[in-house]
Order: sequence, then structure tokens, then C-alpha cells
Amino acid sequence: MADLKSTFLNVYSVLKKELLEDPAFEWSPDSRDWVERMLDYNVPGGKLNRGLSVIDSYKYLKEGKELTEDEIFLTSALGWCIEWLQAYFLVLDDIMDSSHTRRGQPCWFRLPKVGLIAANDGVLLRNHIPRILKNHFRDKAYYVDLLDLFNEVEFQTASGQMIDLITTLEGEKDLSKYTLSLHRRIVQYKTAYYSFYLPVACALLMAGENLDNHVDVKNILVEMGTYFQVQDDYLDCFGAPETIGKIGTDIEDFKCSWLVVKALEICNEEQKKLLHENYGKADPANVAKVKALYHELNLQGVFADYESKSYEKLIASIEAHPSKAVQAVLKSFLAKIYKRQK
Amino acid sequence: MADLKSTFLNVYSVLKKELLEDPAFEWSPDSRDWVERMLDYNVPGGKLNRGLSVIDSYKYLKEGKELTEDEIFLTSALGWCIEWLQAYFLVLDDIMDSSHTRRGQPCWFRLPKVGLIAANDGVLLRNHIPRILKNHFRDKAYYVDLLDLFNEVEFQTASGQMIDLITTLEGEKDLSKYTLSLHRRIVQYKTAYYSFYLPVACALLMAGENLDNHVDVKNILVEMGTYFQVQDDYLDCFGAPETIGKIGTDIEDFKCSWLVVKALEICNEEQKKLLHENYGKADPANVAKVKALYHELNLQGVFADYESKSYEKLIASIEAHPSKAVQAVLKSFLAKIYKRQK
Repeated sequence: MADLKSTFLNVYSVLKKELLEDPAFEWSPDSRDWVERMLDYNVPGGKLNRGLSVIDSYKYLKEGKELTEDEIFLTSALGWCIEWLQAYFLVLDDIMDSSHTRRGQPCWFRLPKVGLIAANDGVLLRNHIPRILKNHFRDKAYYVDLLDLFNEVEFQTASGQMIDLITTLEGEKDLSKYTLSLHRRIVQYKTAYYSFYLPVACALLMAGENLDNHVDVKNILVEMGTYFQVQDDYLDCFGAPETIGKIGTDIEDFKCSWLVVKALEICNEEQKKLLHENYGKADPANVAKVKALYHELNLQGVFADYESKSYEKLIASIEAHPSKAVQAVLKSFLAKIYKRQK
Repeated sequence: MADLKSTFLNVYSVLKKELLEDPAFEWSPDSRDWVERMLDYNVPGGKLNRGLSVIDSYKYLKEGKELTEDEIFLTSALGWCIEWLQAYFLVLDDIMDSSHTRRGQPCWFRLPKVGLIAANDGVLLRNHIPRILKNHFRDKAYYVDLLDLFNEVEFQTASGQMIDLITTLEGEKDLSKYTLSLHRRIVQYKTAYYSFYLPVACALLMAGENLDNHVDVKNILVEMGTYFQVQDDYLDCFGAPETIGKIGTDIEDFKCSWLVVKALEICNEEQKKLLHENYGKADPANVAKVKALYHELNLQGVFADYESKSYEKLIASIEAHPSKAVQAVLKSFLAKIYKRQK
């Protein structure tokens, strides 16, 4: 595993070097330095789960057959495209959310010499994806499908981000808009497609599959991505800060979290009034009242119930799939997230 | 001409309607309203020259043969993709430059309900391009070339924007970095590729041409785009505000304008000192000193000389081209910009 990660990181260096010598642009030392610093700051510092899962998934599809060097490089390159996509979204999201830190360091746009140039850097990150694809996949039969896939998933992610942004518009804080259906739409589009479906879809294309024949795989992965985000919402409030690595602020930030949506669904009129009065306020006294209500409503039990039902449903869908190799891919994803504490 | 423009605007309505019903996303009335308002505010309000020139260019390539309804629709759709690309860049540029107005109205991000959500709207605009291409060109032999073309030109534009941004970095104002070579690189990448090469390249692809065989056409158009931007720089200082529709502020803004670059090239040490002391300051007294120096150096004459030499060179390159149809496309572009006053 440590080995896989170091191979993966080597591919990053190769891809970066190619980008910094891209013949479609006339480089100067200044511009090369800028892009290199920007890439190193924003691309490889995450957990790399999404990127690594392309390689894993492809291995399962090859049913344990040793991958060739070429296959390792290409699956890694696709994995990096997803990491680049993520970096692009995070750089722009941090600007929009006025965030301060990301992955334990100041957000890129917070660096004194960067500022709003970060918006163009986000655009550059996005533009690197088709450059990487062109450099390494232009002659593959599935090249056009890769381009279509990345385009569609990026469109879905940006659309999910849009509904998230317009429902939490400053000055229009209105809890009554928060429903399970809205929550599901935000999560599905903003997170599930690019985090869960995209890595497997990349592996399927490399294995010569037609994605039109795998709508069921897409649906299962989107379902899994939704479950993953519900866990995230749960851990934000009930997780141990020392385990999840941050102190959750969804209540203060008026987030459309699964917890508040569930609470609204099952509470009585008096409890609803309490939620409306206390949700989305920075004062710890307000936050404490919301948390007390979550306990009163036994949201921990409701979540445990949701978790086991989701798991059973996902397992049943996976086992209904005709291909054992595809089942193995999907089960490996599920095993990584089921009952996670962080 | 008015007729062509109204046909073109009709195609906008068709494309918008398709985007607002894109099956890759689950729309709600709120999200549909947001995107429609955002499109109407940002996409169709410009001069539409870039978009319309795809149709014009294709007509020349067809040597005057009447276009079919289908050809008119498709060339218009490609023209709109360029207008969408432009809208995407302008929305983000205005955020990065803290601009106030654009096309006679407040910048999109200045609207109270929008703010930094505009960054994601820019991303959405960008994402609409591959949606439009997929809706109308997926079955064309040149589909993958269209995707590659838009990807490469966007990459070049973002790279040009990057060198512009990093050379005018706040706190590092240093006139000695401003050279003719830097000016040419900024202009070529930031403006010329998408404004001049892209429309013609779209028309060539639709006419069944392989772009690899048209590197000379690309070079001529990039040259023309550079000449166009030099005119822009000239008019910013010497144009009549009532004709160009704005009061130029390149001197105040420390812009890497062709004028300051030329001035630096031909001035003596004393004049250089004056430039360093007065360029990039908001005070009208400083600006007046720079303008007086421009007159002293006879930059109007230097520009007139540059203009006629560029014209002759461009005409010679165009007439060396083997195809009369391609010559006609290039000459029509040149005729539109030669000696323009606005």
C-alpha cells in the first residue's frame, strides 16, 4: 500500500513535468515557477483516496492479474486527473466560502502573493486535466468517452455546488427549505458523482467497457456517495474531534446537514421553533441547544438505523450485479466507508 | 446583417432552453431561474463579433454557396460556444480585477444576491460549452477535434491571463519587466487565440478540414489578434472617449500596454526616469506627465508606422495562402479591424 502510494506520487512528478513543458504555451521561468508552486501546494496534499481508487478498481476489473507498467501509469494518470479536479473545486470553494485553512495549511488564496489570482489558478488546474488526457490517451479508443465523462461529472459537481450556494444565500436563511430531497440532491451532485462514480467509471473505460451498460453501477456508487456524505454530516456533530481532525461547525454555518433535515422531519412544533431560533448562530449557547435537541430526538439512533439499512440495501444491489469483478470493486468501496469513525 | 444577428440570437434561445433541461442534472424552479438569469445577464450582451464570425468564416469557406438551415444552426451554436467562453472569462476576470461595470451594467459579482457565487457561475458557463457540443456535434467526425480545440484554446487563454496577473502583482510594480516580448506573449495567449483563431478554427473543422494542415492560418490570425490588441492599447490613450465608449485608464492601472513598452524601448535615461516615477499612479498630474512624454516620443507616429507595416505583412502572408476561400476569410477579418477608431 505504501508502495502503491509512492508509485502514484512518482506519476504526479511525471505529469507535472510534462505540464510545465506544455508546447501549447511559451513558458518563462516566472510562469513555470508559479505553476509548479501552485500545483505542489494544491494537488498532492490530500488523502488521495479518489485517485488511488482508480488503480484499485482497475485491478479488481482485471481479476487480480498483475498490471503492466503501462497500466499502472495510465490508471495513476486518471487518478491524478480526479485529484486535479478536486484541487480545482477546492481552490474555488475556499474563495467562495472565505475559508481560512485547508489540509492543515492556509488556503491558497490566503497567501499574500496569491489573493484572487487563485481564481485563475483554479481555472488552470481544470485546464490541466484535458492536457493530461491528451498527452496519454489521445490514441485510445475510449479517449472521447473520457473527455465526455470528465465534462459531465464536472458539470454535475458545479450544478450541485450551485444548489448548495443558492440555498444558503446570505440574508435568506430559511430552514423550511431544508428537506431530505434537497439534501440528497446537493450531496449527489456536489460530491457523489466525482468522488465515487468518477474513479470507477475511469477504470471501466480503461477496461474497455461502455459506460452506457453500467447505469446500475453508477446508481450504486451515487447511493454510496450519499451515504458517505450522511456519515460526514453525522461525524461533524457526533464524531470525536481528535479522530476526525477538526471541530465541526455545520450548526453554526447553517449547513443543510442530514442531521438538521432529519430533525426537522421528526420534531414536533415546539422543537421546530427551537431549531428555527437556534440553528445557524455562532453563539455556543445556541449551538448547545441544537445539540441537546439532536440528543432528545435520538439522532444517533436514527443514524445507526439509517446506516445499517443503507448497508443492507447497498449489499443487496451489489450482489444483484452480474459481474463478480464489478461486485468486488463496489464491495471494496463499501468496506472502506462502512461504520467509519473519520 | 441585422437578419443574421437575429437568427444568431434565436439560436441562443434554443441553446439556453436545452441547457435548462439538461437531463444530467435534476432541476428545481430555483436552480433553473438562477441559471437563466445568469445566462441572460452574462452571455448575449456583448458585440457578438467573435460568435458571428464563425458563421461569416464558414460562408467564405463554402465559397458563397447558400448555407442550409442546419449549417446556420451549427455554425451559430459554435459561435455561441465562443461567446460562452468569453462570458466565463469575463465573469472571473471582473472578480479578480475588482471591476465595477461591464458592458454598461454592474459586473455580475457586484449584484447583491450574487457576490462570490459568481465564481461558480463562471464554472457553470464553462461547463455549458461541452454540453452544447455534445448535444449537437456528438455524431460528427470532428467532434473530438472540437473538444480538443476548445480545451487547448482555453488553456492558452488562462495561461495568458496568468502571465498578465503575475507581472502586475500588487506590491511588485516594476516597469523594467515590461518588454515587447512580454507584451506579445500576454496578448497572444490571453486574447488572440480565442478571439481570432478559435472562430476560424471552428469554421474549418465544420468544413471538414484538419487543423494540423492550417498552422499558417493560425499564425496569421494570432498575428492579427496581436495587432488588434496593440490598437486597443493605442486607443485607450489616444482614442476619442465618445467613440471608444470609455475613458482609458491603462496608465493609472500600470498596464503592460504596447505604448509604455514602446516608450521604454525608445526613450533616453531621463525620460525613463520620468516614466518610472509617474506610470501606474492615479493622480491626474502623473498621468498627464506620461501622456506628455508619449507625445514627445511621437508614439502616434510610431503607432501609424507599426499599423501600416503590420497591415502590409499580414496582406503578404494572406496572399501567400494557396486557398482563395481561406484568403477571403482572413481578409474579411483584417478589413474589420484595419484603421479602426473604436
